[in-house]
Amino acid sequence: MTITLTTFDWVPEFAHGYVRDFRIRWTLEELGLPYQVDTVPGAEKTAQHLSRQPFGQVPMISDGDLSLFESGAILLYLAEGTALKPAGADGARVLQWVVALLNSVEPYFMRWADAKFFEEDEAAAAKAEPMLRQRLKQVETALGDRDWLVGDSFTVADLLLAEMLRIPGENGLLDDLPQLAAYAERITARPAFARAMQDHMQHWKDAAAA
Amino acid sequence: MTITLTTFDWVPEFAHGYVRDFRIRWTLEELGLPYQVDTVPGAEKTAQHLSRQPFGQVPMISDGDLSLFESGAILLYLAEGTALKPAGADGARVLQWVVALLNSVEPYFMRWADAKFFEEDEAAAAKAEPMLRQRLKQVETALGDRDWLVGDSFTVADLLLAEMLRIPGENGLLDDLPQLAAYAERITARPAFARAMQDHMQHWKDAAAA
Repeated sequence: MTITLTTFDWVPEFAHGYVRDFRIRWTLEELGLPYQVDTVPGAEKTAQHLSRQPFGQVPMISDGDLSLFESGAILLYLAEGTALKPAGADGARVLQWVVALLNSVEPYFMRWADAKFFEEDEAAAAKAEPMLRQRLKQVETALGDRDWLVGDSFTVADLLLAEMLRIPGENGLLDDLPQLAAYAERITARPAFARAMQDHMQHWKDAAAA
Repeated sequence: MTITLTTFDWVPEFAHGYVRDFRIRWTLEELGLPYQVDTVPGAEKTAQHLSRQPFGQVPMISDGDLSLFESGAILLYLAEGTALKPAGADGARVLQWVVALLNSVEPYFMRWADAKFFEEDEAAAAKAEPMLRQRLKQVETALGDRDWLVGDSFTVADLLLAEMLRIPGENGLLDDLPQLAAYAERITARPAFARAMQDHMQHWKDAAAA
C-alpha cells in the first residue's frame, strides 16, 4: 500500500521550500518509501479539510486505513523501528529530542518568524529574537562536537533539527554558532534532502501551471 | 528499578500546581508505577543541571540506565504499549494528538501565558488571545461529542489536553466552550489526578520547610 502525502494545492511563493510537507518528503526519501501526493485547497480551508485536520494545516498522510496529521507525529510514526528511530534507549532519546525541538525550540522560532515574516513587525521580532538565539545556543551546546543528536548515526531528530535551522540560518541567526551551522550544512547536503526538495518545488511549479 | 522523577527544589508560589513534573506524576499514577523524586536547584540553573537538560527545564526521569527530559516525550515513553498509548493505529493517533497539542496548541498558550503572567503585558496578552481561542475552539470541534480524543478510552492524549486546559479554564477561556470545559472537568476528576496533585503540592510544602 503506497503512502499518500497530502499538502496544499497552493501556498504563497515565499513559502515554497518551507511548507511542512517537506519534512515528510525528506523522511520518506531517507527511508526509501515511495509515496503519492494529494492536495487540499491552500487558498481557503474547506470544511472537508477541517474535518480531517482540526487546524486546517498540512501535511497529512494516509497509510492504508490510517490517516494521520501533524508533521512531527508523522515523522516519528514513519521512523519508528527504522534506523531513523531505532528500538530501545536510543529510540527514546530520539523521541526526547524530537519533542524537545517541537515544544521547547520551535515555539520560539514561530514567535520570531510570525512577527518577522507574517506580521512584518520588526519590534516584535526583535523582542522574540533573544529567546530564539538562547535556544539555538543551548542546542549547539548540547550537540557539542558530536555528529548526531543521538547515538552514532543520523536519526529523524537530526532531520528535524536541520530542517528547523534553515530559516534561522538564512537570516544570520547561526552566524555566531559555527558548530551548529556546520552540522546543519552537513545534514542538508544529504542526497535525500535534495530529492525531497526537488519534488517539493516541482509540486508548486506544477500547481501554478495547472 | 524504581523510576526517579526530577523536578525543581523551588519555584515561585504562583507556579505551584503547574510545574510540568505534574504531567508526569499524573501519568505515573494512572499507570500505577511507583517513583521517587529528586531535585535540581530551581532558583538558578546549575552547570550540572544544564549538562543533563540543555534548556535548564524540568522534569527529567531516570528509568534504569535511561535518562530522559522533556515532559511530552516522557509521557509518551511511559505510556508506550499501555492502555494510555496502545499499540497499532490508535497508538499512532495518540502520538498524533500529543504532538498536535505540543506543537500546534501549546505554543499559542505559551505566547498568551508568557505575556499575561510573566511579562504582565496586557496588550500583548490581548493580541495573543484570539489565536489561542481559535485553537481551543478547533480542539472542541475535533472532539465533538466523543468522550475521548482517540478510540473508546482515556489515553495520554486526554491527560495532556486536560492538563493543558487548566490555566485557560481558570481564566475564562473555556466559558464559551462548554463541551471542552465538561471534558476537562471530567478528566481532572480522575482519582489519579488528585493523587498526583496531592504529591505535587506536598513537594513544594516540604521544600519550603526544608
